[in-house]
Amino acid sequence: MSGVEEVDERVSLDFLKHKMAKFAKERDWDHFHTPRNLLLALVGEVGEVSEIFQWKGEVPKGLPDWKEERIHLGEELSDVLLYLVRLADMCGIDLGKAALRKLQLNAIKYKASNKYTQHP
Amino acid sequence: MSGVEEVDERVSLDFLKHKMAKFAKERDWDHFHTPRNLLLALVGEVGEVSEIFQWKGEVPKGLPDWKEERIHLGEELSDVLLYLVRLADMCGIDLGKAALRKLQLNAIKYKASNKYTQHP
Amino acid sequence: MSGVEEVDERVSLDFLKHKMAKFAKERDWDHFHTPRNLLLALVGEVGEVSEIFQWKGEVPKGLPDWKEERIHLGEELSDVLLYLVRLADMCGIDLGKAALRKLQLNAIKYKASNKYTQHP
Amino acid sequence: MSGVEEVDERVSLDFLKHKMAKFAKERDWDHFHTPRNLLLALVGEVGEVSEIFQWKGEVPKGLPDWKEERIHLGEELSDVLLYLVRLADMCGIDLGKAALRKLQLNAIKYKASNKYTQHP
Repeated sequence: MSGVEEVDERVSLDFLKHKMAKFAKERDWDHFHTPRNLLLALVGEVGEVSEIFQWKGEVPKGLPDWKEERIHLGEELSDVLLYLVRLADMCGIDLGKAALRKLQLNAIKYKASNKYTQHP
Repeated sequence: MSGVEEVDERVSLDFLKHKMAKFAKERDWDHFHTPRNLLLALVGEVGEVSEIFQWKGEVPKGLPDWKEERIHLGEELSDVLLYLVRLADMCGIDLGKAALRKLQLNAIKYKASNKYTQHP
Repeated sequence: MSGVEEVDERVSLDFLKHKMAKFAKERDWDHFHTPRNLLLALVGEVGEVSEIFQWKGEVPKGLPDWKEERIHLGEELSDVLLYLVRLADMCGIDLGKAALRKLQLNAIKYKASNKYTQHP
Repeated sequence: MSGVEEVDERVSLDFLKHKMAKFAKERDWDHFHTPRNLLLALVGEVGEVSEIFQWKGEVPKGLPDWKEERIHLGEELSDVLLYLVRLADMCGIDLGKAALRKLQLNAIKYKASNKYTQHP
């Protein structure tokens, strides 16, 4: 019933896809959004995430001491996500369905009952 | 009311986050999932997406002639998404909220009323 | 006999390795230059190269119309190279010898007499 | 006077450029080697380097315990180098000269006399 819950519920891949499509259309950016252009934009954003982590050595889970930098990181991770969503859309791929299918494939490939001494 | 609609509705970032957390826990992979390990895994998956596109030159939107390769691409894009979701979680970042915030920042920064001759 | 030739001759991987080592030592940066730190720095620089190409669609070989942007591109490609050289050094790998060996492996794997309808 | 020294001397960026050009020409690959195709191939190889490091956590300089994996790493780093050299060539950039120029720019930008508590 809370607004926060409702917001969380809305942040589906489908919701982001429609937001990105509307955003591009309103700015006449559709012609820029070819698959390979978007892929290179995605690579650029992954590079920006890497730059945040590059000189830090190992950092603990949860990044307990990060304040302003966590906000910056959230923005860069969002940029990766938004270009990923847009790339999938421009490739005719339903990213939500593809992700569900991949989770199922992973569950078959990597059985929970196995002992893993290394991450596959 | 259809099953497909319900499935779509479920594919929120929060849903994927919980699936990934459960998957890792059941396989005792939590100790592998540090922020920088996950970031490098993400870079690896972006590399696999790039390999799909690397020798093709420009490809048209919607990838009209892709069949088996589109399925493969969907799997690789899903891998990027799943590691991205997991990375955000291990960094203490609510990726859905961060993405909504970034969409709002983008809407302020890039006004729809502007004329864009180049993509910013 | 010309100065330019001499300069060209000097730009070996070994020369760059020694330059990078000296540069880091003089600034007390050695402790930052761990393998994974350098790898993430490399990813960051590849991201910057990608940003130069991201919205352009296909561009012709030789980039005939690029002026200032070609200089910028040369700087970013150099950053990739310099971190790559430094990464190899910090991994105990002789990059020049490794590259010669890889060229030989490639020549065995991809015979010149084959007809290639696709790039392998 | 030793063969090894001579080989080392030969591993200049210019030498690798000519080797790559000859290799591509002999296999009729020139038409595949557009700037953006090569850039995506480079991203793919950086992804393969990342996969080697992805689940390891921090690793010490020199990778003292790596044996077979160091050879594999040397091959992947070489692939990054070879595509980088080829990309620069197809962009009309003299990578050796660009790298020398970048080293000079870096020396001006980051003075050795400064105290660095963070890597810039």
